[in-house]
Amino acid sequence: MKKWIIFYFLLTSAIQASANDGYKLWLQYYSIPDDSESRSHFGSIHVSGNSPTIEAIKQELDLAANGFFGTQAIMKEADEASIIIKKHDKEIANVISKKDINSIGDQGFVIKTIKSGSQTKIYITANSDLGLLYGTFKWLQYVQKGDMLPEDGLVQSPKIERRILNHWDNLDRTVERGYSGFSIWNWHRLPRHIDQQYLDYARANAAIGINGTVVTNVNANSLVLTEEYLEKVAALADVFRPYGIKTYLTARFSSPIEIGKLNTADPLDPDVQKWWADKAEEIYRHIPDFGGFLVKADSEGQPGPHNYKRSQAEGANLLADALKPHGGIVMWRAFVYSEESPDDRAKQAYNEFKPLDGKFRDNVIVQVKNGAIDFQPREPFHPMFGGLTQTPLMMEFQITQEYLGHDTHMAFLSNMYEEVLQTDTHAKGEGSTVSKIISGNLHDHDLTAIAGVANIGTDRNWTGNHFHQANWYSYGRLAWDPDESSDIIAKDWLELTFTRDETFVSKIQKMMLDSHQMVVNYMTPLGLHHIMAWNHHYGPGPWITDKHRDDWTSTYYHQASSYGIGFDRTASGSNALSQYHPHLSEKWSDKSSVPEKYLLWFHHVAWDHTLSSGRILWDELALRYQKGVNEARNNIETWQEMEGKIDQERFKHIASFLKIQAEEAEWWKNACLLYFQQFSQKPFPDGVEEPERDLNYYKNIDPKFVPGI
Amino acid sequence: MKKWIIFYFLLTSAIQASANDGYKLWLQYYSIPDDSESRSHFGSIHVSGNSPTIEAIKQELDLAANGFFGTQAIMKEADEASIIIKKHDKEIANVISKKDINSIGDQGFVIKTIKSGSQTKIYITANSDLGLLYGTFKWLQYVQKGDMLPEDGLVQSPKIERRILNHWDNLDRTVERGYSGFSIWNWHRLPRHIDQQYLDYARANAAIGINGTVVTNVNANSLVLTEEYLEKVAALADVFRPYGIKTYLTARFSSPIEIGKLNTADPLDPDVQKWWADKAEEIYRHIPDFGGFLVKADSEGQPGPHNYKRSQAEGANLLADALKPHGGIVMWRAFVYSEESPDDRAKQAYNEFKPLDGKFRDNVIVQVKNGAIDFQPREPFHPMFGGLTQTPLMMEFQITQEYLGHDTHMAFLSNMYEEVLQTDTHAKGEGSTVSKIISGNLHDHDLTAIAGVANIGTDRNWTGNHFHQANWYSYGRLAWDPDESSDIIAKDWLELTFTRDETFVSKIQKMMLDSHQMVVNYMTPLGLHHIMAWNHHYGPGPWITDKHRDDWTSTYYHQASSYGIGFDRTASGSNALSQYHPHLSEKWSDKSSVPEKYLLWFHHVAWDHTLSSGRILWDELALRYQKGVNEARNNIETWQEMEGKIDQERFKHIASFLKIQAEEAEWWKNACLLYFQQFSQKPFPDGVEEPERDLNYYKNIDPKFVPGI
Repeated sequence: MKKWIIFYFLLTSAIQASANDGYKLWLQYYSIPDDSESRSHFGSIHVSGNSPTIEAIKQELDLAANGFFGTQAIMKEADEASIIIKKHDKEIANVISKKDINSIGDQGFVIKTIKSGSQTKIYITANSDLGLLYGTFKWLQYVQKGDMLPEDGLVQSPKIERRILNHWDNLDRTVERGYSGFSIWNWHRLPRHIDQQYLDYARANAAIGINGTVVTNVNANSLVLTEEYLEKVAALADVFRPYGIKTYLTARFSSPIEIGKLNTADPLDPDVQKWWADKAEEIYRHIPDFGGFLVKADSEGQPGPHNYKRSQAEGANLLADALKPHGGIVMWRAFVYSEESPDDRAKQAYNEFKPLDGKFRDNVIVQVKNGAIDFQPREPFHPMFGGLTQTPLMMEFQITQEYLGHDTHMAFLSNMYEEVLQTDTHAKGEGSTVSKIISGNLHDHDLTAIAGVANIGTDRNWTGNHFHQANWYSYGRLAWDPDESSDIIAKDWLELTFTRDETFVSKIQKMMLDSHQMVVNYMTPLGLHHIMAWNHHYGPGPWITDKHRDDWTSTYYHQASSYGIGFDRTASGSNALSQYHPHLSEKWSDKSSVPEKYLLWFHHVAWDHTLSSGRILWDELALRYQKGVNEARNNIETWQEMEGKIDQERFKHIASFLKIQAEEAEWWKNACLLYFQQFSQKPFPDGVEEPERDLNYYKNIDPKFVPGI
Repeated sequence: MKKWIIFYFLLTSAIQASANDGYKLWLQYYSIPDDSESRSHFGSIHVSGNSPTIEAIKQELDLAANGFFGTQAIMKEADEASIIIKKHDKEIANVISKKDINSIGDQGFVIKTIKSGSQTKIYITANSDLGLLYGTFKWLQYVQKGDMLPEDGLVQSPKIERRILNHWDNLDRTVERGYSGFSIWNWHRLPRHIDQQYLDYARANAAIGINGTVVTNVNANSLVLTEEYLEKVAALADVFRPYGIKTYLTARFSSPIEIGKLNTADPLDPDVQKWWADKAEEIYRHIPDFGGFLVKADSEGQPGPHNYKRSQAEGANLLADALKPHGGIVMWRAFVYSEESPDDRAKQAYNEFKPLDGKFRDNVIVQVKNGAIDFQPREPFHPMFGGLTQTPLMMEFQITQEYLGHDTHMAFLSNMYEEVLQTDTHAKGEGSTVSKIISGNLHDHDLTAIAGVANIGTDRNWTGNHFHQANWYSYGRLAWDPDESSDIIAKDWLELTFTRDETFVSKIQKMMLDSHQMVVNYMTPLGLHHIMAWNHHYGPGPWITDKHRDDWTSTYYHQASSYGIGFDRTASGSNALSQYHPHLSEKWSDKSSVPEKYLLWFHHVAWDHTLSSGRILWDELALRYQKGVNEARNNIETWQEMEGKIDQERFKHIASFLKIQAEEAEWWKNACLLYFQQFSQKPFPDGVEEPERDLNYYKNIDPKFVPGI
């Protein structure tokens, strides 16, 4: 007997020690102690119903049982089972209250533990098979983490209806702003070969409640709307459907010309309207539950209604009318700015869309980036949130780290998302958070949505950096409940992805929670923005100037001079502040009451201006950069202490990336401080390391073939 | 006790059932029956020595023990161990004969089982740590397959000194003629991040004896020779070194101009000579064991000595002189053909190089493709083999399937390699096989090498098609011993990669062994060649004509007319046959004695010419196409019978690809037969299915974004 026990532990430890490339994401189902009730639960499960989604539930239970205990999930009749997974019916009504069931809608679920005598049964119920799937995933997560279900059960439903990933993936498999390899969509092999990865993609997303995916780049290729490609898209949609994930496409506005042989794409032209109506019908023949279109128009070279002197509303409504009969929606991006940059770019989207408020069809939702510039390490919330009231607005977050260090920089973005979501716009008085706007509560909209620009690629761990999996995960969690807190999300992710080890979880959770501010510190502290390298955005480039348009340069944004630094967006400057609610614009117009994190976003500030710390701006700026660098270095040590707590493969991979991050943090600090010092003409304060190289060295760094197109 | 046994089997079966994406290649180390002696062997191993290669041996033993039995490899002192892995010394001399040790050279190994009383010890010995590594891999393969070691032991050493993979990988990670994703070399993250995949690449290659890799494309970018990139290459070389793999680079002939700021690259210019000498020194500072350069010059737009009216020898010797002091070699490709195509392309390399025979430095080896055109599904051997005698020649095989159906077509190329290697050139009388030429025996050359153009990419299984792993594997096996037979290679690969199940192995082995001829049948039977689609080479294109150069068109190669079909390379035609030994040229000049597989390669033959089958050419051609299609369809059924014998993930993946292959076989057959029927004006014979579509349908197929650049 003893021999077998020893052998079992050897075997288990061998499994644990075996290579883990991170492919399984938060669905590791790593082995857990056998002494829990859970093991017996997996021996008697009842799953009721018959649909591809129900099959997916059973398969997931099997995978989990296999991972947790090396066993199979065993199916039983309802009266013999200790786990009952079943849509709401008369029997369930005996144990789950009507109130709970009514509150969860189409996508929610209830999990309840019922004790009768010595017996304990867990009920997972919902109003749809998809709700059951979400509930099953949630329960499996509790088991993996070793958490007890709450006494009074779990009653959950998403606060936002459409929770969508945006893939900036091109048909040639390059990924715009993608830093983890190439597109996972193998268009050449589709529709004939369905890769296991598509299925695992669907599982991972469903596990966190994501229910939509735009599979093509916003800088769109109209080819994807041809019959040949629609068959490929339909094959993907077939894989995603059982997991409740709807497929969307980007629509290139000039498609009627490019693939339709028309000579115009004017939204008011009847032939154009008919073309889109026919095209929508064709799409729905292939994909009956097609979600709709995402459109980037009149922006960075993309065609749009402006080409025909039509408004953004006229453009969006053209597509909305085509999709309407089939139940599709249009997500129309607000990221519109002039090719001539006559005005502060931060103001242009608001100026363009505010007058159109209420002029969009009811199946149009306007997709607004979290800030008014472009996914900077930190931005104040976009003034369109709270500014438009009659038009549903959806949030666009960037999960891929275009401006946050690409693949190698650990930055837990949940904090950044949370900061934006919890900001009070004051649109309808105190408490008018961005979260309430996008969940439709504040302005009473039924159509609600949220988008995250995916960080997914062909890298074996999907996201390049193992920690970047956490950003995909946290996006999903916040899309389901935009009021979740980042510390819980980080803890859950760590426990699902790595281990329950308490030291590991608490130390790394803290490291993650501090990481976004750390990156802001070593890149763009105190409200600085858009000072990265030209084009590929890899590394610092505060010296970028004299390009064909001002608002793609760094000097335009930081305005450094011998007097000071920062972009004046008060009344004395571009007055972008006037786009915010007076409560905010008044507070933020004043250097002494604006949050310091936004100081240089809104103000041009003298180098010797004194900040809350008692230090002058130059000293504070320099110390912030140094603080970011110091923390990045400390993270290497913290991580080293974790050796042995997780598998070696991921341990080493992360260790290697943290080292690169610390080196690049120093690169950012040195390049930016040496550059800005030319203007401030002040010495570095105590505690700030002198750079080993001069400014020219940093200016001359010219990396080739930087990923991300 | 019983409970534990049951649990153990559950656990084992669960491990077996778990997902297998094919990443582990032929190093699966899947669990094997516990009743063998092998398990106890892993409990007492002695590995002597102390070097990175010795560490690699220990790690591999551990991985294998873990996979086979869920245990660790336990190290013991030599006298207590039952496996002794140790370089040759006095002690070993007691059990291994001097003759054996002397015969294996630097890279070989001896494995011997010695019984003394009840004790059995296995000795793995060699003259180098690398030999020990090769021996260890070989022993582990015997254990995995469940084969007994031969009574009199194994005494093996490679017949070719340098066994090299050529990666046609670009610095932007696209792969020319790559059909399994993108380059596994992440240049952006190098040198700072060393991915686990680089290590696994080295392991997989060492396991089959590959000892060199050219990491960049023959269509070269001189950037890789800059300091910035040499640091990256050096980081890869550091990973490969313990596994005995040397790193090589492609050298762009115009590098002195492009990165050296010279205004010429003339090989006779002293500044150019100095530049290359300095560059070589710089490279060896980074990579002390750098292998050398591979060069494609004066071919398809690549610069070369012709630009300066110098010969190929003068070009090659320039680089050879630079590398010579450091021990490096130049692999100079013979794939040179005129931009104006004045003569049969098949003749040009021979004509260019034959007069230069003996004019190359002794560290130059000329790299010759297996055939004189370009990696067609089947080609007669290149007449340079046997044609040049004073210059060492190396073989270039293509592992990636540029002309053999890209990713989805199963074609076991071992048979094709073997056919070429075993062809008798008659250069020095009967028995002058190509194999003897490239192993240096026939013309007594010390410098021997072989190259395979890799089919490796970012696909999770490395090669896109699981069966294409077998081509990488078989290339390695044949590089070690060019006289190995394909049926053994196929069997070994199947047992290492999937299972020992006898039914599976015998059925699938047969399927593999028949597959190359099957593909030839449905693409280019009876010696047809170069009739694929334009540019991307995906699918049939016998109609390709009127391009800017004749010898890139299909009509140039098939010469179909109302009279007949085929390229006349006899004296009445291009007389390419005269480049072969008279014994062959005479035999092959005659339609009745040329092997039918080469018939249309060398002859223009009338449609109603009668073949050995008694059928006229047209009927035979049509039936060959149909035969290929029928076999591709049968493979689907054969594979379906294998369900349950291997993991579901790979089973399904292969099933899906076999279905695509059968569809595309039909596409080839229909397109080619409809096209050629225009000329033959004959009906399809009995047994040939009428195509459902007309020729125009096939001509209009225009796939977009075909992989492979």
